[in-house]
Amino acid sequence: MGRRTAVPPISWLMKAALTRPKLISLAAGFTDNATLPAGISRDLLDVILDDPKIAKPALQYGITAGETNLRRLTAERIRALDASSCSSSFLKTRTRMNREDEDDIYSVERTIISGGSQQLLYITLEALCDEGDIILVEDPTYFVFLSILQSRGLRARGIKLQRHGIDLAHLETVLNRLKKSGDLRRVKALYLVSYFQNPTGTSTDFETKRGALALLKKFEKAAGHPIYLLEDAAYRELRFAGGDIPSALAVPGAASRVIYTGTYSKPYAPGTRVGFGILPEPLFTAVDRIKGNHDFGTANLLQQLIAKALATGRYDEHVARIQKRYRQKAAVMKQALAEHFPSEVELWESGGGLYFWARLPRGIPAGMKSKLFQAALKKDVLYVPGELCYADDAARRKPSNEMRISFGSASEEHIREGIRRLGAVLRTVL
Amino acid sequence: MGRRTAVPPISWLMKAALTRPKLISLAAGFTDNATLPAGISRDLLDVILDDPKIAKPALQYGITAGETNLRRLTAERIRALDASSCSSSFLKTRTRMNREDEDDIYSVERTIISGGSQQLLYITLEALCDEGDIILVEDPTYFVFLSILQSRGLRARGIKLQRHGIDLAHLETVLNRLKKSGDLRRVKALYLVSYFQNPTGTSTDFETKRGALALLKKFEKAAGHPIYLLEDAAYRELRFAGGDIPSALAVPGAASRVIYTGTYSKPYAPGTRVGFGILPEPLFTAVDRIKGNHDFGTANLLQQLIAKALATGRYDEHVARIQKRYRQKAAVMKQALAEHFPSEVELWESGGGLYFWARLPRGIPAGMKSKLFQAALKKDVLYVPGELCYADDAARRKPSNEMRISFGSASEEHIREGIRRLGAVLRTVL
Repeated sequence: MGRRTAVPPISWLMKAALTRPKLISLAAGFTDNATLPAGISRDLLDVILDDPKIAKPALQYGITAGETNLRRLTAERIRALDASSCSSSFLKTRTRMNREDEDDIYSVERTIISGGSQQLLYITLEALCDEGDIILVEDPTYFVFLSILQSRGLRARGIKLQRHGIDLAHLETVLNRLKKSGDLRRVKALYLVSYFQNPTGTSTDFETKRGALALLKKFEKAAGHPIYLLEDAAYRELRFAGGDIPSALAVPGAASRVIYTGTYSKPYAPGTRVGFGILPEPLFTAVDRIKGNHDFGTANLLQQLIAKALATGRYDEHVARIQKRYRQKAAVMKQALAEHFPSEVELWESGGGLYFWARLPRGIPAGMKSKLFQAALKKDVLYVPGELCYADDAARRKPSNEMRISFGSASEEHIREGIRRLGAVLRTVL
Repeated sequence: MGRRTAVPPISWLMKAALTRPKLISLAAGFTDNATLPAGISRDLLDVILDDPKIAKPALQYGITAGETNLRRLTAERIRALDASSCSSSFLKTRTRMNREDEDDIYSVERTIISGGSQQLLYITLEALCDEGDIILVEDPTYFVFLSILQSRGLRARGIKLQRHGIDLAHLETVLNRLKKSGDLRRVKALYLVSYFQNPTGTSTDFETKRGALALLKKFEKAAGHPIYLLEDAAYRELRFAGGDIPSALAVPGAASRVIYTGTYSKPYAPGTRVGFGILPEPLFTAVDRIKGNHDFGTANLLQQLIAKALATGRYDEHVARIQKRYRQKAAVMKQALAEHFPSEVELWESGGGLYFWARLPRGIPAGMKSKLFQAALKKDVLYVPGELCYADDAARRKPSNEMRISFGSASEEHIREGIRRLGAVLRTVL
């Protein structure tokens, strides 16, 4: 497998961002440095480490699936998010929120803590897939997920992405095509980054989640096994405009088919690396076992930190602060884009997350070897080429005229200056 | 792969230890609770989180391979351990310590930080092996390592373990047998838990490391690829009697063939989950890429904590404290064993680590389904059945008359009482 694993672009981009001090990186998905919760973390760690009843378990080994209290707080949190987004919308009566089996879905027993949600995506693929299996992905999708697929010898099939989620008609076409070619039995899951998607910023609406699940269900018999909906909600809490949308867990019948992954790292602090998932059996058991082989469980000290932050309300306080901060930074970037980007560039704006998505006119390449990318690098500004976010898929040409531009880690001054530089480079190319 | 991954016994044992409050566990490799460094960790985290220059990187994403300062401190630490154990012994002139290329071996570029050394063992196997490949292991060996092999569809071949490391003549016999059967090309590494081995407590002497490497080298041509020595030094710092032994990195020619894994978790605090490895190219690059796909790198906050502990000397201060503590607990267990265990039981004592190894007379089974294990469980005392530590290997019957008994996490009172209970159960069985 080592021979197969390619250089993950993320490693290169992260390293470039960390090692070239003059570079303005609008690339890597780092979060805002200024609001990182140093004070909150110090206060909470003091409380944890001063209390022998918590300090000892925090510094000792634990249970592979995670600290029970954190798992409970996590399950309750996702239940509450789904319930409030359901009840605040017309969806209420159409979701399972009032059904008796609700308890079974958002339960401690189905909840696992992981090293960021990234680790859980990895282990889920280990548990689900054999070499040659197929995962359906948004086109474009999260490029590190594509790295995992490539490294593990898995195949991806892209489903067209629209402003409110995947194109369900295209999903059905692809499933029918796979059925005809005999490949449907290799399809194990549909992967959706459903909130403020990486890279495009789109959010999947609830009707699309419901429709996707129904389609997967329809093809299960021909596949000969369950086809899971793997919902990656990493950006859900980085919302600064618009209302929340219920997760796919809220779709009736989702209990046995939806894998929900989320994270505390991105909203709180990436350096703490605490993610989580809610999984159906028998997948939960398989993932738990593999996680045991990986590392016996995520560092307890960090689990206790997040649990304490959640229980004291300091987590929510921090999330409110960063939501405000990202709202402001997104606005700064929007203004700079309006000022400096040529009008031929199509811009996708989001109500959350860390990214703008920019589409250049057809025929203007923006990939890592393009004139544009190289010229930008020379001007010390970095973006993520959109082409990295497309799976290898013979059914269509990979678009190469797109850019992911992040306002996550850069300061407001750097956002303005970075967009100014990028705009200048764009003008020379267009 | 999920279908293949069996229940890891470690998960069951850890859970039993955590959820049955009356149980005295002499099973799981938990470390001493009383000496866990709560105060040191609080002090250091306060310093880290009060200093914006360290706090921000500690809470942000980092480089996949780990924080540069911690990698440097780690490489220097292993270099110093090897140098001092070499220079304090007759080995000095026979090792590479004074050679020019020493710098290349203990370098930042070859050092990677991981989620405990466990994660590095996992990823190394991912990088090295395809399904069906063979890893040579000590017979018996670390049972979670066997879980990984089983889960990944890898095969193990056991090499007889003696009091000072593996039997080199048996290693050669096995390699010859594999060559004849055509399986040598599937052999990728020899795995040695070289310090205070889990489960037997034996340490591999330097001559055996050198001899093993020479044998692996001898068979490489027939294998058609490098056969690595994977040295797991997880217990190296838990030494309370006798001198240190140089690692296999100190053998001339080791640079390209030795993978050294170690950990800060066990000596400092398992709840921090920071391990490390020193690896040759091209393996380092492969492991780094796979680690990127797993989790982008280990939690920076914990890396900064360990780096600060190392740099301030508080890590060494803590290690000295736990070495004294384990010396005392081992002595308590030794006395209790002498008092309560029947004389027919053969005991292996160690100068470090967390375990005694007990061998019952032949024909007395001690496995999980044995009368002995069940009777012990009924008396609320738990040990690790030795049979869990043997690979599936058609070439020999799995011994089932052994027990791993840990003095790691139990209090002195519980050690005495646990051994008393176990002794009573043994007397009814013998």
